[in-house]
Amino acid sequence: MSTAWTARYALRTKGITSSQIRELLKITQKPGMISFAGGLPAPDVFPIQRFEEACHKVLTEQAASALQYGETEGYRPLRELIAHNMARYGIKAKAENVLITSGSQQALDLIGKLFINRGDRVLVEAPTYLGALQAFNVYGAEYMSVPVDNDGLRTELLEQPLRSGPKFMYVLPNFQNPAGTTLSEGRRHELVLLADKYGIPIVEDDPYGQLRYEGEHLPPLVVLDRENLRRDGGYSIGNVIYLSTFSKTLAPGLRLGWIVAPPEIIGKLAQLKQGADLHTSTFIQFVAYEVARDGFLDKHVRLIRRVYRERRDVMLEALKEFFPPAVSWTHPKGGLFLWVTLPEGLDMQAVFRSALEQNVAFVPGDSFYANDGHEGSRHMRLNFSNAAPEQIREGIRRLAAAVKSQLTAASLPSELPLEV
Amino acid sequence: MSTAWTARYALRTKGITSSQIRELLKITQKPGMISFAGGLPAPDVFPIQRFEEACHKVLTEQAASALQYGETEGYRPLRELIAHNMARYGIKAKAENVLITSGSQQALDLIGKLFINRGDRVLVEAPTYLGALQAFNVYGAEYMSVPVDNDGLRTELLEQPLRSGPKFMYVLPNFQNPAGTTLSEGRRHELVLLADKYGIPIVEDDPYGQLRYEGEHLPPLVVLDRENLRRDGGYSIGNVIYLSTFSKTLAPGLRLGWIVAPPEIIGKLAQLKQGADLHTSTFIQFVAYEVARDGFLDKHVRLIRRVYRERRDVMLEALKEFFPPAVSWTHPKGGLFLWVTLPEGLDMQAVFRSALEQNVAFVPGDSFYANDGHEGSRHMRLNFSNAAPEQIREGIRRLAAAVKSQLTAASLPSELPLEV
Repeated sequence: MSTAWTARYALRTKGITSSQIRELLKITQKPGMISFAGGLPAPDVFPIQRFEEACHKVLTEQAASALQYGETEGYRPLRELIAHNMARYGIKAKAENVLITSGSQQALDLIGKLFINRGDRVLVEAPTYLGALQAFNVYGAEYMSVPVDNDGLRTELLEQPLRSGPKFMYVLPNFQNPAGTTLSEGRRHELVLLADKYGIPIVEDDPYGQLRYEGEHLPPLVVLDRENLRRDGGYSIGNVIYLSTFSKTLAPGLRLGWIVAPPEIIGKLAQLKQGADLHTSTFIQFVAYEVARDGFLDKHVRLIRRVYRERRDVMLEALKEFFPPAVSWTHPKGGLFLWVTLPEGLDMQAVFRSALEQNVAFVPGDSFYANDGHEGSRHMRLNFSNAAPEQIREGIRRLAAAVKSQLTAASLPSELPLEV
Repeated sequence: MSTAWTARYALRTKGITSSQIRELLKITQKPGMISFAGGLPAPDVFPIQRFEEACHKVLTEQAASALQYGETEGYRPLRELIAHNMARYGIKAKAENVLITSGSQQALDLIGKLFINRGDRVLVEAPTYLGALQAFNVYGAEYMSVPVDNDGLRTELLEQPLRSGPKFMYVLPNFQNPAGTTLSEGRRHELVLLADKYGIPIVEDDPYGQLRYEGEHLPPLVVLDRENLRRDGGYSIGNVIYLSTFSKTLAPGLRLGWIVAPPEIIGKLAQLKQGADLHTSTFIQFVAYEVARDGFLDKHVRLIRRVYRERRDVMLEALKEFFPPAVSWTHPKGGLFLWVTLPEGLDMQAVFRSALEQNVAFVPGDSFYANDGHEGSRHMRLNFSNAAPEQIREGIRRLAAAVKSQLTAASLPSELPLEV
């Protein structure tokens, strides 16, 4: 290529690679494919009628404001509604603590922009959300990874990495993407105490918190952090920045998320957001407010919980029915994903190709590790929110066949008898 | 503040300052204020009925896709419509050359992210669009400024700065923000030849190109560049990245803009956009497509041209009627702004305060200079698209009174007789 542009990329293009998931999602568009690959909500639960009423209302009563430029921080009634809704989880935010973002992904980008210098280390879970790595990579982040188990981030392994001073920790406490695990209440307390002890702040990413299908809601880190800080005497604005989104409760096509932080940090983030996109679509914010208001969002979340709980249960049942005993998986108490662990020695790329041949897709685990993709080579992430129950069962049947074919191939020469 | 967060800002917060315009726009919300300060389209021309039909159609026929995650590059029919519409201006883009962005502001941010390393110099016009400076500052850009006159960027002053190798040039050829001037056809040819000679690429920002109220449309740089490159023999993908937006032709509250570039660059920008916000709202893109299609956008742009041309003319008339002879202003052939030059020696901050006291607002010129705000101390930017004609006349009358009061104050001791 002979353009003056192409020789001029900035340092930060080093962090740019086409993500495996991105390429994968193109394959999954194939007709007949049952996809557990994406993190897509079920379109069956989009509240279409309510959206239509909201659009009509906004355009009839407020078009001049809804179609005009708006404030960078976001539409004030929407910020107030968000603050009000979070209060039930103990998050005592005011509208001034809320910045509306173009999806949670923009929240991650703005946080990267505000806090990460090239070479700064960010402490992440292993595995962790791929999109956060993509957002932080651009700013030259390096990573320290701490593993998760069934109770979430293994806080007993945190002291040593925290001592070496990462810029911040990035944690998904509820129904983690990709592992589906939830940080236990005891570990939540430990985590905020450690953050305080070592002065390492936390980004708490909570896109799925409302989608709990069993058990009791656990207090967010941002709440425990403040309680902890108050116990130590005096008021504090806190060490936790909290993120959430309407993508999983209303619709991802809105691109509406938010950041909760102290006003000084909201102010800085808003200035960065102004340079990044001026503000999030006013029209979308007005419409989302009209959809969510008057208790509709709560009622709608209850519907989503029922639908997704059923799909999760169908997937868990099917895994039990079709998968060989050497395979294990997490039991997510909410969210959209579960995490399957295959026996050692399997060639995951071969499993993946075999699955695609059987018209079923998943995301191989290696995409979700900041430092060593090899850690993920025994794992697959399965999404259970998007496909209908009968498809889920059929997809798991096909996937089991793909796994078994590779399990047999891998094991033939050694341990297992031929008839397995 | 005692949080672990606030000591941890990245280098790029050095570029963050609250913009004067941002603060100013809050003042202009005051009741009774006539504001020429913002760059706001007239809400009277928002095609509300058409938006309502579009929302209804999208939610009735395509809700499952319109509310779901979408492709980072944008909704394909919208990219095709944009490519098709640009063809009339000679821009031979395909959908593959178009990346949908969350407003033109995001285009500027992504370009900064892709191309600017800390300390890189960007060649900009003096004055130039403030939002571009805000977007580029974050990445540590330094600036080389070249002045504009009534024929736009003074290309005869370009050779020396180009020889010293800026990363790229940022140019607004049509009805520039803030000056309202248009780059002449001769200078357009010179500019692309110089870009080619020195290997310095161009970002052509064209938010207002369709809003021409007199004279003939001039060929965009991206078109001349390709013609030039073809004359030199062989095909070239071009040295010009072109930006535009629906903010001024449909509604800014959509936050919908686009970038035209070679596919390799679109690919890199799309990867950065994925990390920045995954994609622009699918719902907004579907709705904008339904609004714009079947020739509606063209018809609507003709209406906007009529309305804004009248407002421009009212402002020009009122300036002539009320302003003292020592004041001059540009005669914009399109767009949203004109640029007023006051006599030397006036205290612009005093004029500004006096104007606010009279309930009329504008943006003082110093905000629009990359290097030396002092160059702008004799200028004011006036927007003529937002206020109704009778308000424009009254606002200019008040502004003239504010200017005269300061002119008298400034001049009393020396040149001017008392009765002026």
